[in-house]
Amino acid sequence: MQSSNTGKSMDVGALTVPDRAALVQYLQRIGDDRLVLGHRLSEWCGHAPILEEDIALGNIALDLLGQATRALELAGEAEGEGRSADALAYFRDAIDFRNLQLVELARGDFGYTIARQFFFDAFSIHLMDALQYSAHAELAALAVKATKEERYHVRHSSEWMMKLGQGTDESHERIQRSVNELWRFTGEMFNVDDVDERMARLSVAPLASELRTQWNDVVSDVFARANLERPRDEFFARGGRVGKHTEVLGHMLAEMQIVARSHPGVEW
Amino acid sequence: MQSSNTGKSMDVGALTVPDRAALVQYLQRIGDDRLVLGHRLSEWCGHAPILEEDIALGNIALDLLGQATRALELAGEAEGEGRSADALAYFRDAIDFRNLQLVELARGDFGYTIARQFFFDAFSIHLMDALQYSAHAELAALAVKATKEERYHVRHSSEWMMKLGQGTDESHERIQRSVNELWRFTGEMFNVDDVDERMARLSVAPLASELRTQWNDVVSDVFARANLERPRDEFFARGGRVGKHTEVLGHMLAEMQIVARSHPGVEW
Repeated sequence: MQSSNTGKSMDVGALTVPDRAALVQYLQRIGDDRLVLGHRLSEWCGHAPILEEDIALGNIALDLLGQATRALELAGEAEGEGRSADALAYFRDAIDFRNLQLVELARGDFGYTIARQFFFDAFSIHLMDALQYSAHAELAALAVKATKEERYHVRHSSEWMMKLGQGTDESHERIQRSVNELWRFTGEMFNVDDVDERMARLSVAPLASELRTQWNDVVSDVFARANLERPRDEFFARGGRVGKHTEVLGHMLAEMQIVARSHPGVEW
Repeated sequence: MQSSNTGKSMDVGALTVPDRAALVQYLQRIGDDRLVLGHRLSEWCGHAPILEEDIALGNIALDLLGQATRALELAGEAEGEGRSADALAYFRDAIDFRNLQLVELARGDFGYTIARQFFFDAFSIHLMDALQYSAHAELAALAVKATKEERYHVRHSSEWMMKLGQGTDESHERIQRSVNELWRFTGEMFNVDDVDERMARLSVAPLASELRTQWNDVVSDVFARANLERPRDEFFARGGRVGKHTEVLGHMLAEMQIVARSHPGVEW
């Protein structure tokens, strides 16, 4: 991005139709990543191996849900149709979700959850850092808050990566296996399509591809300290950004949406 | 309680054996109420009807789990055996839990969850308020923090009681039904036994029976504003404080404890 945010909101109404559609998509991607990951994390509520970790994962989940709510509000406003964050969260089907496949995968065991979280955090901290300078003032404000939160998240997941990697043979082997399984889902974070290019041109967001070096640095550093091997870059899964999801997202959404859908139009 | 806390911790080692055993019991009661209710609430993570409420219930659950962790730490210290909060949370069976039956009941629908929470909050705010002056300095410190948290909790659940009570015919009918069903579990909060009497004598805690008037005032006020009828005081369930629990606590603990118990002795 060239410009830094002046604090004045961009005039969404003045955007061309394709730029505005891209903005809606972009904000949904930001929101959906965090909504889906927040829910996956919150599945640990009451099931973590220690109380302190139960509380830590819960706090991280709530941060992500807070970021998601705000991003979806902004997406609804950019749509101009007035769909609320709740409508977007509870009344879209999987095919309309724009999250990375990485975040929707079933939670797995504790190490798997931590490895997924670490890969996402190491991306999100740099994304949010850059988004603080977005020309979209409300998104920039979201990013200022999220950057503070992500700083804690990435520290937390990095520390666990090191603890598990340096732990017993079993914990080391298990976390390495999770890393290997998840690796092919990390490439999608850095894909760039027309939506991203429009956002970069409007100084709304950085090109995700430009964050790859920073992400690699964090990951290499933690891998080295955790005594973990970096998997080879081969095939990378993709498609989440345009609504192609693994089957497990549908199951997760069914559970997440049932209460809201059972009482449509109810004012709670 | 006569005295106010001077900030100096009481000498647990100087207590008589029965007084010390009572202190352990009392701290477990405080911890277990909040551990069990926190877990019941956290079952809503990802299932509340609106995002904002998902986050609010999650925050309240985390407050309760934080209070629980601290109270169980203090219980372990009072035992003198050095059992950690995690050991107490994950390696006791239902019969060794000392929580009120009210907090263990299955979460039910949203209104049921709110009504249960309201009954507990209206009690806990006054209990924590009084415990700020406990002769047990660490418990007093816990209560200072918890009072601030409970102020938010009781406001939140009171507002929902009014919203649901004044809502549609259906929401009104449902919340009244939840109130009726839960009523017989409210009496246990005010029971007094030898443990309570010892705590009162040592100025560690108020007699719970003395909080009943304050609780009644809050409940009557909210019932009036929510247009809800107060059920008649008939039979009140009891037994949770001495380890008699409904069957659902066992199921909840099985789920909550499985990860920790599957890896005994593992350093996470």
